[in-house]
Amino acid sequence: MSGNLDKMVYRFGDGEADGRAEMKNLLGGKGANLAEMSHLGLPVPPGFTITTEVCAYYNANGQTYPEGLKADVEAALAAIGEKTGMIFGDADNPLLVSVRSGARISMPGMMDTVLNLGLNDVTVEGLARRADDARFAYDSYRRFIQMYGDVVQGIEHHLFEDILAAVKDARGAEQDTELTAEDLKEVIARYKELVEEETGKPFPQDVNEQLWGAITAVFESWNAPRAITYRKINDIPEDWGTAVNVQAMVFGNMGDDSATGVAFTRNPATGENKVYGEFLVNAQGEDVVAGIRTPQSLTEEARQESGSSLPSLETVMPEVFAQLMDVFHKLEAHYRDMQDVEFTIQNGKLWLLQTRTGKRTAKAALKIATDLVREGLIDTDTAVLRIEPEALDQLLHPTIDPKAARDVLARGLPASPGAASGEIVFDSDTAEQLAAQDRKVILVRVETSPEDIHGMHAAQGILTTRGGMTSHAAVVARGMGTPCVSGAGSITVDYKARTLTAGGRTLKAGDWITIDGSNGDVLEGKIAMVQPELSGDFATLMQWADAARRMDVRANADTPQDAKTARDFGARGIGLCRTEHMFFEASRIAAVREMILADTEEGRRKALDKLLPMQRGDFIGIFEVMAGLPVTIRLLDPPLHEFLPHDDKDIAELAETMGVEIEKLRQRVDSLHEFNPMLGHRGVRLAITYPEIAEMQARAIFEAAVEVKRATGAAPLAEVMVPLVLSRKELDLTAARIHAVAREVMEETGEQIDYMVGTMIELPRAALLAGEIARTAQFFSFGTNDLTQTTLGISRDDAAKFLGEYVAKGIFETDPFVSIDTEGVGQLVRAGVERGRASRPGIKLGVCGEHGGDPASISFFEQAGLDYVSCSPFRVPIARLAAAQAALRAKQA
Amino acid sequence: MSGNLDKMVYRFGDGEADGRAEMKNLLGGKGANLAEMSHLGLPVPPGFTITTEVCAYYNANGQTYPEGLKADVEAALAAIGEKTGMIFGDADNPLLVSVRSGARISMPGMMDTVLNLGLNDVTVEGLARRADDARFAYDSYRRFIQMYGDVVQGIEHHLFEDILAAVKDARGAEQDTELTAEDLKEVIARYKELVEEETGKPFPQDVNEQLWGAITAVFESWNAPRAITYRKINDIPEDWGTAVNVQAMVFGNMGDDSATGVAFTRNPATGENKVYGEFLVNAQGEDVVAGIRTPQSLTEEARQESGSSLPSLETVMPEVFAQLMDVFHKLEAHYRDMQDVEFTIQNGKLWLLQTRTGKRTAKAALKIATDLVREGLIDTDTAVLRIEPEALDQLLHPTIDPKAARDVLARGLPASPGAASGEIVFDSDTAEQLAAQDRKVILVRVETSPEDIHGMHAAQGILTTRGGMTSHAAVVARGMGTPCVSGAGSITVDYKARTLTAGGRTLKAGDWITIDGSNGDVLEGKIAMVQPELSGDFATLMQWADAARRMDVRANADTPQDAKTARDFGARGIGLCRTEHMFFEASRIAAVREMILADTEEGRRKALDKLLPMQRGDFIGIFEVMAGLPVTIRLLDPPLHEFLPHDDKDIAELAETMGVEIEKLRQRVDSLHEFNPMLGHRGVRLAITYPEIAEMQARAIFEAAVEVKRATGAAPLAEVMVPLVLSRKELDLTAARIHAVAREVMEETGEQIDYMVGTMIELPRAALLAGEIARTAQFFSFGTNDLTQTTLGISRDDAAKFLGEYVAKGIFETDPFVSIDTEGVGQLVRAGVERGRASRPGIKLGVCGEHGGDPASISFFEQAGLDYVSCSPFRVPIARLAAAQAALRAKQA
Repeated sequence: MSGNLDKMVYRFGDGEADGRAEMKNLLGGKGANLAEMSHLGLPVPPGFTITTEVCAYYNANGQTYPEGLKADVEAALAAIGEKTGMIFGDADNPLLVSVRSGARISMPGMMDTVLNLGLNDVTVEGLARRADDARFAYDSYRRFIQMYGDVVQGIEHHLFEDILAAVKDARGAEQDTELTAEDLKEVIARYKELVEEETGKPFPQDVNEQLWGAITAVFESWNAPRAITYRKINDIPEDWGTAVNVQAMVFGNMGDDSATGVAFTRNPATGENKVYGEFLVNAQGEDVVAGIRTPQSLTEEARQESGSSLPSLETVMPEVFAQLMDVFHKLEAHYRDMQDVEFTIQNGKLWLLQTRTGKRTAKAALKIATDLVREGLIDTDTAVLRIEPEALDQLLHPTIDPKAARDVLARGLPASPGAASGEIVFDSDTAEQLAAQDRKVILVRVETSPEDIHGMHAAQGILTTRGGMTSHAAVVARGMGTPCVSGAGSITVDYKARTLTAGGRTLKAGDWITIDGSNGDVLEGKIAMVQPELSGDFATLMQWADAARRMDVRANADTPQDAKTARDFGARGIGLCRTEHMFFEASRIAAVREMILADTEEGRRKALDKLLPMQRGDFIGIFEVMAGLPVTIRLLDPPLHEFLPHDDKDIAELAETMGVEIEKLRQRVDSLHEFNPMLGHRGVRLAITYPEIAEMQARAIFEAAVEVKRATGAAPLAEVMVPLVLSRKELDLTAARIHAVAREVMEETGEQIDYMVGTMIELPRAALLAGEIARTAQFFSFGTNDLTQTTLGISRDDAAKFLGEYVAKGIFETDPFVSIDTEGVGQLVRAGVERGRASRPGIKLGVCGEHGGDPASISFFEQAGLDYVSCSPFRVPIARLAAAQAALRAKQA
Repeated sequence: MSGNLDKMVYRFGDGEADGRAEMKNLLGGKGANLAEMSHLGLPVPPGFTITTEVCAYYNANGQTYPEGLKADVEAALAAIGEKTGMIFGDADNPLLVSVRSGARISMPGMMDTVLNLGLNDVTVEGLARRADDARFAYDSYRRFIQMYGDVVQGIEHHLFEDILAAVKDARGAEQDTELTAEDLKEVIARYKELVEEETGKPFPQDVNEQLWGAITAVFESWNAPRAITYRKINDIPEDWGTAVNVQAMVFGNMGDDSATGVAFTRNPATGENKVYGEFLVNAQGEDVVAGIRTPQSLTEEARQESGSSLPSLETVMPEVFAQLMDVFHKLEAHYRDMQDVEFTIQNGKLWLLQTRTGKRTAKAALKIATDLVREGLIDTDTAVLRIEPEALDQLLHPTIDPKAARDVLARGLPASPGAASGEIVFDSDTAEQLAAQDRKVILVRVETSPEDIHGMHAAQGILTTRGGMTSHAAVVARGMGTPCVSGAGSITVDYKARTLTAGGRTLKAGDWITIDGSNGDVLEGKIAMVQPELSGDFATLMQWADAARRMDVRANADTPQDAKTARDFGARGIGLCRTEHMFFEASRIAAVREMILADTEEGRRKALDKLLPMQRGDFIGIFEVMAGLPVTIRLLDPPLHEFLPHDDKDIAELAETMGVEIEKLRQRVDSLHEFNPMLGHRGVRLAITYPEIAEMQARAIFEAAVEVKRATGAAPLAEVMVPLVLSRKELDLTAARIHAVAREVMEETGEQIDYMVGTMIELPRAALLAGEIARTAQFFSFGTNDLTQTTLGISRDDAAKFLGEYVAKGIFETDPFVSIDTEGVGQLVRAGVERGRASRPGIKLGVCGEHGGDPASISFFEQAGLDYVSCSPFRVPIARLAAAQAALRAKQA
């Protein structure tokens, strides 16, 4: 139960180290980077790292330490003493150290830091003498007792604060800095009393006891409940363990030739190649965080830009500044990326405490990656791997001005990215009317249905109080690129009163709200926005990504407008054109309803004849935009009752329009009712029972293909897709009809048409029988939305009630409708791929579920060997980048 | 494209034959049995069989015959001539033959029979002379032309009948038999004119042309549309082909020493070991079928029993009778089963034309099988294999008296077997009231819901106009053993007017109807019934079955009464006890609704405390009945909204009872609405979000177990089953709660409880991840209802709209909710079994879906290696028998 314990302690500091950056597993991230910086010859305060293996041993052996560890630590401490000229626990010249945890990746719940360890009633005097500053020494001791009491001994933080406040009150002091050394002695005395009360023992005066207390606290914090939960959720093995870093203290608060600061080697907001950071003279790191004093700029240029009157480091300590710039160059050249650095200057000497890869905005990430390629530091593949695909969303949608105040009314799900402000409207007709008057509206509904499409098109944003990330509202909004917050359950909508209520506040129709579809916030009022801009860096990076990826990227698009957006974003065809959306348009719904309510095939054919030219027109528009590229058109999928009215008023209206009895119409509507429409009479089942519908659609597709071929010369590749297939026979029967129509149209027009007939794989049975089905299907498109619903037995429209709890309890790592469930659904996708290819080598395989635009899912699809992914137009760039990264990682692996 | 053509023609007759009974594939069923009878030395008119391989050649080679066939047929014909002393086509002594098809299994659409082939204008004179009966000869010729014209030449049957009727009219004759030889010559002349008009050619006078015409017609009929459809549906390979049998004619109509008859070697209705049959003197087979003359009994005993004044064969032809009895003994001894025999007596000589295993009632099947064991003809395993499991249903339920007139009002699905008569009632409350007055009622609903349980219990039978074989009504009715016809779509129910209308007739509440749940008939009026009786043969056979089977049989039962029925029928435990049914009882629903509508866990726990003693009582009753046997109890499964009222009136009532605002209650009810409840917030998802419900149920189970153990000493084995699991983590969380409650109850009572915690495998993901789940689950029960719904993406409640067409078009062989879809769902069951066993060897595996009572599915479960099946109580005997047969077939294979 223990790994390699040959070497338990790794030393570092001042130009030499036992470890390296690559040894993160053994030394943790912090320890490995401290070792690496030491190797680079950078000024790192000397210290040592106790390995993660020791932690594993500690946990596996009943909280005991391996033999020899104490001696190794003593030797390493002595080595620090030699380098610093100080001695741990020495009354005259005491060495102080910091103790920090350091796992492979940072983890909430782990012990953070104890500073100034090594102080006691005796050494504090030595420090005061050496520093010639009693106040500094007692303040350090006071801070040490407080930190140690809190993080090592588990005494509540506020108890220390209460004592400090009481002493300040008694002295009439407002700031900590107003307390004298004597005052601080008083604080220390009372702190020690507190510790004795709480722990039943005096505050430890033995510096070794202090040190082992802190080391043990780090190891124990590996088993803190928050850390355990975090590891469970993130599938981090229990036996990884954490390292412990012990390092000599350096002080930025030893006078005006001391300082402390943080810096990014480039601008993390814009990516500009300019150092970005701040510092405080005569201060410790805590003071920068506390925000009591105004920090100063590092460079003179930055100071001028900010208009600050406080001098820059460049002016105040030009030599240290030059040294720091040199360090930054070295770090960037070494790590080949922008660094986030912590440093301290003690009596004019620069010390580096940490370096790590800096976080950045999407815009900065693009600029830095492309700049680094130009600077020759990285290659294009590395640049592609540097950008978080999801971050591109920031570049494609308006966002709320980060400086604006956020008055959050409620929170929902971030269903479609981007932010929008508008007047509240509660129905789609009003949304359309107001939009026609150039008024900006947010459509607020309990949930949306296909009948709301016109309102959703008209609105700036959509807010629903029910439904998840893949509810109707969410899916349609993402397709349109319209911001959407869904499932904001704390909002109550009263359609009659035309009001919404949340958190005690009631807003009415016409009031302004703002929604942030990127994080799910619903805000009161109109809030300032930042408009997106696409830089040249974006285009450059996308080119590199396209060169690196294996899978193609298509878009899900139902209209020529959507198709245009998709092409502009680089889609190489359409992977899913949903024909039913075309049926909902006001001008068509009458004919659709006539078709549905007809009692005979003849009646249906009559109504279908009216729909034919309209459908043909739809396809012509899309084929023209996609000139020559493949377009996958799915035959009618939803159950027919979705096209019918359901409430009394609408039924009465329709009855009058159609000239039939209300009661008879209601009976017909009722007879089409389904308990579980998702599993009902839809998809290919419609084509089996009403083949004339599929025939009309096939005719519209092929006639449109001929027309576009003749008009433009760029014949489309029409891929006719049959949905919800579960057996080869269903597809045989339907494909035969489609082929017959194709032959007819070719004979009638004398034109050849390139087309294929294929199927969705969206039912478990279809995946299991993919080998059989592929004998007829010329392509597969995995419909992972429905495949997830059926494999998991979860209706995405109803999942909101428990999905949150499922993620919170770690049953799902993420919403399985957002990132594909690789363990379960993934098995079926892999089976579908393998069996499909086995019986038809070269079969075209893609995915058109919502997962097609999700980077984690795209990575899975790359591994599964799909030929393309298809996603909503606005996610095409994300998918291109994610596909490139997946391909590159696959190559690396 | 052709098989073995080494030998194309197999001869048989009079003590010798080329073929055997085992050669059904090559010779068809009829030909193989004729050969077998010849080997047995029985008097079979000589003939020959053209093999199925010739048919395959014919179809594969552009409707041509293999070389040498003509010569072989000629030689075989000559051989018949030698045996009979007649010559085919001879003017003086003509040989006549019959031509019949003969596939491996009988098939609708195939050509049946041409008799008297070989007659023409010349040979008819020879026949007249030889038989010394001109009328016989011309009648034979007339019949031949009519049959040949109809089945070989495709001339419509009624055209011949019209001519015959016209001649009879002209002669003033009422019966065919009144026509003279001269009259028949007139008929023949006009028949020949008709043939020439219809075919453009005279009726063939060349006997060889006649023969090849008939042979070709048999082969062509293999490709008749009805035959093709039948093969598609039944998955019979196209290349099997049919054989052709050509056989010398023998005549039962050559005077008073001639006769024709049919016989069963035992009574096919009762199984008694007494010959059962009838015959006609001086007649042909057709005459028996036509039913113009009253047939006579074979034995004197049967004549006396029937009170007939017509003499028996035993009296009329004692020698032939004795010979026939001898033949019957030989056949039974040889075939070891009751035979259905056709014979003809020509001038005092007995000829056998066919023997086959006789069809019989369930009762007869039992008696015959057990008798044959006693007689030493078969062993017990063979007896077990002889009974069609489904046929047992006849023995377990009342059936409509076969002699009663059936006034069919409508047809639905045979949803739950048995017949019942009663007054029509349209709601469950009325059903309960009338039943309390000892009135018999049939509950008629568009569809039923859990709220109808009390009415369904009270009714004699249930009729619904919507829903399939696995709709709520069907499943519950089968569980109760109550007859049910579901989905009788041609009936319109008007709840307001309290009438039902079908086929133009309107019946009102209180009118009597009868339903036949075994075939789906709905009949007007009260109809005589036959009550079921279980003979000792049944018990005997069931013992043999139990000895032969490997799988255990349990029952699905929710009440002590059902459990009692199940035990009486031989169930070895309960495989599914649905706890939700207990929640619907009037006395409990208030507490259930209080629990659902509570806003806090505390409120829910308060309501659950009220339910606890009731649930405990339920389990005590069931544990007592099942003394010591395993009882699998499923935690609450349906979505909570199923327990709430939905229409305005009921909501208002409930609001008053609960003392809450109507509007608030409606909002709460609405908020629980689900689009696809089947895929909604149910099963283990309830236990995850409201663990207190599972805890109450677990406590009720364990407390009941302790109480029964103390009271009876027979501690039950409680198997707590968690439904709808899709991941191990769900089960971990829930199992932890259950184990905690078990520990509590054991500590509180000081009693040990044997129990297990397991899960349903009813989602594709659960089957795929069964290996993981089995690390926690101690048993699996495959819930193949929901597994079918999710794997196929078909809601069984909504499937009625297209399932019929799916079966008709051959997409499904049978309703996949009746017999398990072995190709699709079966893969997941097998995966679940293999992966479950791999990670927990010895895991207990069963099935509790509706398929658990279906013989075809049980056969699959045997192959898949399950430990037990569980089905509704009334199907337990069927399942025991089916399981035995499956085990025996597996052993044979």
